[in-house]
Amino acid sequence: MLVPVRVGILTSGGDCPGLNAVIRGAVMKGDRIYGVEFLGIRDGFRGLVDDDIRPLPRHDVRGLSRQGGTILGTSRIGPFAEGAGGSARVREVMERHEMDAIIAVGGEGTLTVARMLNDDGIPIVGVPKTIDNDLSATDYTFGFDTAVSIATESIDRLRTTAESHSRCMVVEVMGRHVGWIALHSGLAGGAHAILIPEQPVSMEQICAWVDAARDRGRAPLVVVAEGFKPEGTEIVRDALDGFGRPRLGGVGEWLGPIIEEQTGIETRVMTLGHLQRGGVPTSYDRVLATRFGLAAIDAVMDAKWGHMVSLRGIDIETVPLHDATRDLKSVPQSRWDEAAVLFG
Amino acid sequence: MLVPVRVGILTSGGDCPGLNAVIRGAVMKGDRIYGVEFLGIRDGFRGLVDDDIRPLPRHDVRGLSRQGGTILGTSRIGPFAEGAGGSARVREVMERHEMDAIIAVGGEGTLTVARMLNDDGIPIVGVPKTIDNDLSATDYTFGFDTAVSIATESIDRLRTTAESHSRCMVVEVMGRHVGWIALHSGLAGGAHAILIPEQPVSMEQICAWVDAARDRGRAPLVVVAEGFKPEGTEIVRDALDGFGRPRLGGVGEWLGPIIEEQTGIETRVMTLGHLQRGGVPTSYDRVLATRFGLAAIDAVMDAKWGHMVSLRGIDIETVPLHDATRDLKSVPQSRWDEAAVLFG
Amino acid sequence: MLVPVRVGILTSGGDCPGLNAVIRGAVMKGDRIYGVEFLGIRDGFRGLVDDDIRPLPRHDVRGLSRQGGTILGTSRIGPFAEGAGGSARVREVMERHEMDAIIAVGGEGTLTVARMLNDDGIPIVGVPKTIDNDLSATDYTFGFDTAVSIATESIDRLRTTAESHSRCMVVEVMGRHVGWIALHSGLAGGAHAILIPEQPVSMEQICAWVDAARDRGRAPLVVVAEGFKPEGTEIVRDALDGFGRPRLGGVGEWLGPIIEEQTGIETRVMTLGHLQRGGVPTSYDRVLATRFGLAAIDAVMDAKWGHMVSLRGIDIETVPLHDATRDLKSVPQSRWDEAAVLFG
Amino acid sequence: MLVPVRVGILTSGGDCPGLNAVIRGAVMKGDRIYGVEFLGIRDGFRGLVDDDIRPLPRHDVRGLSRQGGTILGTSRIGPFAEGAGGSARVREVMERHEMDAIIAVGGEGTLTVARMLNDDGIPIVGVPKTIDNDLSATDYTFGFDTAVSIATESIDRLRTTAESHSRCMVVEVMGRHVGWIALHSGLAGGAHAILIPEQPVSMEQICAWVDAARDRGRAPLVVVAEGFKPEGTEIVRDALDGFGRPRLGGVGEWLGPIIEEQTGIETRVMTLGHLQRGGVPTSYDRVLATRFGLAAIDAVMDAKWGHMVSLRGIDIETVPLHDATRDLKSVPQSRWDEAAVLFG
Repeated sequence: MLVPVRVGILTSGGDCPGLNAVIRGAVMKGDRIYGVEFLGIRDGFRGLVDDDIRPLPRHDVRGLSRQGGTILGTSRIGPFAEGAGGSARVREVMERHEMDAIIAVGGEGTLTVARMLNDDGIPIVGVPKTIDNDLSATDYTFGFDTAVSIATESIDRLRTTAESHSRCMVVEVMGRHVGWIALHSGLAGGAHAILIPEQPVSMEQICAWVDAARDRGRAPLVVVAEGFKPEGTEIVRDALDGFGRPRLGGVGEWLGPIIEEQTGIETRVMTLGHLQRGGVPTSYDRVLATRFGLAAIDAVMDAKWGHMVSLRGIDIETVPLHDATRDLKSVPQSRWDEAAVLFG
Repeated sequence: MLVPVRVGILTSGGDCPGLNAVIRGAVMKGDRIYGVEFLGIRDGFRGLVDDDIRPLPRHDVRGLSRQGGTILGTSRIGPFAEGAGGSARVREVMERHEMDAIIAVGGEGTLTVARMLNDDGIPIVGVPKTIDNDLSATDYTFGFDTAVSIATESIDRLRTTAESHSRCMVVEVMGRHVGWIALHSGLAGGAHAILIPEQPVSMEQICAWVDAARDRGRAPLVVVAEGFKPEGTEIVRDALDGFGRPRLGGVGEWLGPIIEEQTGIETRVMTLGHLQRGGVPTSYDRVLATRFGLAAIDAVMDAKWGHMVSLRGIDIETVPLHDATRDLKSVPQSRWDEAAVLFG
Repeated sequence: MLVPVRVGILTSGGDCPGLNAVIRGAVMKGDRIYGVEFLGIRDGFRGLVDDDIRPLPRHDVRGLSRQGGTILGTSRIGPFAEGAGGSARVREVMERHEMDAIIAVGGEGTLTVARMLNDDGIPIVGVPKTIDNDLSATDYTFGFDTAVSIATESIDRLRTTAESHSRCMVVEVMGRHVGWIALHSGLAGGAHAILIPEQPVSMEQICAWVDAARDRGRAPLVVVAEGFKPEGTEIVRDALDGFGRPRLGGVGEWLGPIIEEQTGIETRVMTLGHLQRGGVPTSYDRVLATRFGLAAIDAVMDAKWGHMVSLRGIDIETVPLHDATRDLKSVPQSRWDEAAVLFG
Repeated sequence: MLVPVRVGILTSGGDCPGLNAVIRGAVMKGDRIYGVEFLGIRDGFRGLVDDDIRPLPRHDVRGLSRQGGTILGTSRIGPFAEGAGGSARVREVMERHEMDAIIAVGGEGTLTVARMLNDDGIPIVGVPKTIDNDLSATDYTFGFDTAVSIATESIDRLRTTAESHSRCMVVEVMGRHVGWIALHSGLAGGAHAILIPEQPVSMEQICAWVDAARDRGRAPLVVVAEGFKPEGTEIVRDALDGFGRPRLGGVGEWLGPIIEEQTGIETRVMTLGHLQRGGVPTSYDRVLATRFGLAAIDAVMDAKWGHMVSLRGIDIETVPLHDATRDLKSVPQSRWDEAAVLFG
């Protein structure tokens, strides 16, 4: 096989603190060690399909390790959408730019697309990105630590108000399918209840925890992942739509009034939303993302097509994309039991 | 007049970063310089009416300058409510505890009550507290700087996501009647539009600012105070209730979809809510609150009944409560014009 | 007089959080309201003397309100130094670029040079910059609030270690001639002693405060401005050099061992140094610096030559540079007395 | 064996963010799940030898997850010191309090003492604590992430000043024997050189990196661990004492002037020192420390005497203290090579 000399890089899906550090790591090492030229693909796969591509010299990545967002832009558009042209179009655009390989940074959707492109013979390497930390093939992904940090800091702030007014505070954090952000920020913030998609707790149990905290003189703090669904009671079923999701607003805004009504404790709700995605990455995420970027260009030079980089313990490894995108990493029962000791 | 030897202190209304620093300043100086004993009144005027009062020795205030919230608790209950007993009840409880004077820390409502109690002969001194910074009798109040800091930090975070996705971001901050938090955090965060209650801007103007920012390649950022009402168009009137307030959710959640529809720019909304009230006070607020606390006990010893402490330039002064509670401090036209130069 | 159409801007002296926000404010308003072109002068007066000047279009100032440092660079070189060419050289370079006026952002030295240039007929407007807050002609300058915030945050951090080990902690902050940073960060951080250049306290007094705090079970915290000189005792005089400054290291490193020896309390020293100058400006400093920048270009268009912008209460005004550079703003006795109540 | 009903807990060695979260985790689970009573041993092993022990009810640990330092106090005193009484004295004091087991939280020294006590039959369980992250038996220890975060934040701040003045900045961080804090904060902060004890680099190489960064228009940033020793040249050997350590001040203060002299670049030095130990723990450290606390009381109830808790990947395990205290975890060659790609 020939050694790659021009490598394209793209970031795809929701933005995530650390994307820029990945880009910087790959470009710096590509330039210095391998003499590789980089091409920046705009807005994820959209740029690959639309041929929106420009040179990405080393100069453009300086100072990026500490900058949130992605200088390449991102979108949720994929090459296998109707009329996008699929692998054939991708190959055509790559040839036009003499692009020898692609580094694709993204979440489960992106990595699945990368796997499909690779199945069609496109030389591609993946870098996992998910704020939710829901990929089983890696211990952690960058962005997760920043999200947990921001959620924890927010919980710390909300607590002072709650205690001054003797109120219950419900904080809704990210996590549509898995509860990692809720679990970690709830543990860090000293929550009296943590509600996650993996564990369908009843309203009775939630209110019992709130009551118990109040009875000890605390301002009850409930951290809830956006994907949590309370275990069905009559009342609850009415308030959910056909898919078991709250009818209006998020699950936090739905939970708050019920807790207030059933416990008699004045309750306030805060939905952290986009706040958790943004800003300067934590040092943890900068280090992990930089290492992922460095390892990604190594993987390209080693022709590890169809693989992605991954964290195992303190080491960076590569794993086949086929394995990586198979299972969602849920919060296991043991971690839930560990945390639940502190509830109430 | 006799020199006060037992002074009660209460915090009333919404909680605010810096309340604890006021308490600490007053108690420390009262103990060390004047040999005064302090009584902590629980939950604002509620504790005064319900006789929920306990000694507040100096030991209890240590470390408080950097702690958010209020160790005394707070409520919105007043002594002139139906059945509360008014000045007579307050005098009775004060006599039971041999309390010679009261320091009342609170916003416009609290200070008005303090003025009324003083009119009835209760020896009382006020400390102004308003996150919104809406009291004309003082240049600034503690809590405002912390709220602006948190809002600015949040705007910084939201900006990275907005830029990565080329989105418009609408951030709703506190400010029911005045736009100071929106003005300052918007200026600090580089907003492309700042919307405040004092300036009823049309939807056309808002969308023009958003378009202009987008056309220059920016991710448009709109900071809106919760009390803003857009200048009336047919569409807008429909979405407001009879009081000219948005029908559902806050003004931000109402503005976002209209901006998206009229400009075609994907738009996200973040409501900062209680996040702005909480957490560790900024150094600015700690210094101001500590100085207010020190000056409050001075005012008590000087028998400045019916006065409150106030910041003028870099000096702490006292002003009559009658003057202090007369006018709301709105954002003047000149400050709006100054900021509007940067919009769009 | 003709209306200025090309305006030069320079930043001079030590760097300071908020410089970039001044530049942005002036350039944005100059471009939008007055149609003025800006020229960026590199590294303060050095760029004016060496003719190191380039266009500064509006595009170059975007996003600057939240960025520390100065994109123009800075130096301590002046036009009146030996061989620099003085006003004649400045006039020559200005004419070559058709530069009609200069905005000079800097501290006391820079403003004095600006005044001298203006005395020689150079159309110049000043913007005061001093982290130390030592200019009497303005209530506050930008950078001060950021420095106090960083010092306060550092004090908060050091306190946890001190308390765990029952140690005394000495924290040296900036302030060669005035003690404002020490006073405000010490008040905010709950210091048991604040030592400033304006108040020569004896070692006996310092140790008495440390002892008193320890006796109450606290970890004594001493905040000292770098320019503090203890009131003379035999021991102290030996450790000072001919100018009354400590022989080795800063005053903190000198104080620590003496406190440890005389009180028997294990003592650690932290010198915050450059940490206080850097990083993202606080929202307070961003707002003040932006307003200063907006007012500076107004002053240019009003031909207020030889004036500088200034904060009075909550208003921005202009004052003659002659008045502005006359007096150092020291911490007055009243502010010292106010704070000293909390010592020990 | 009988089930433990009274458990002592102590924190020993240098303080570390997360100690309080360990205490809270152990006490909460001990109280709720196992019905165990806790005894707080003051100031590490000193309290065990001096019989300075008091009940530690659950109420005393509330809110501790986010509080830096240790409420139990700490010291470096050990039971095997001259006259301390060794295992016999420890057994005597334990019997007096009917203490069935001890949880000892500390670094290598503490864990070695714990192992020795266990060898003498004292039922003891360890929790590893080292800011430096130098224990091979666990992937990470709490406190490390907080230290890296503070160092990274400081580097971010120092960079703005360095860039404004075109200076080189030398930042000395903790790490007497291993370079983990320097490696991670240097990577996160985008350092142009990272100097660690494990890799004796020559002054020529250091200056070459500084020159290279400067030649690309950057402000060179050097992060150095306190235990770094430059590879010997004549000049360098003179400046080191007999143990190969710098003669005066830390290694940073020694490196700065040499870099300035040899490269001609103005250079400033910042020693972060105690700042890195203190303050509020990061969410990462709160979660890890809480999990360690929960696992420690599990280990006690499982009679895992002579073991300590440990992080492997994302799981908490227990390992024998004999294994745990054998090897220092140095930065391996592969991690150094990975990072060195980014130098210069």
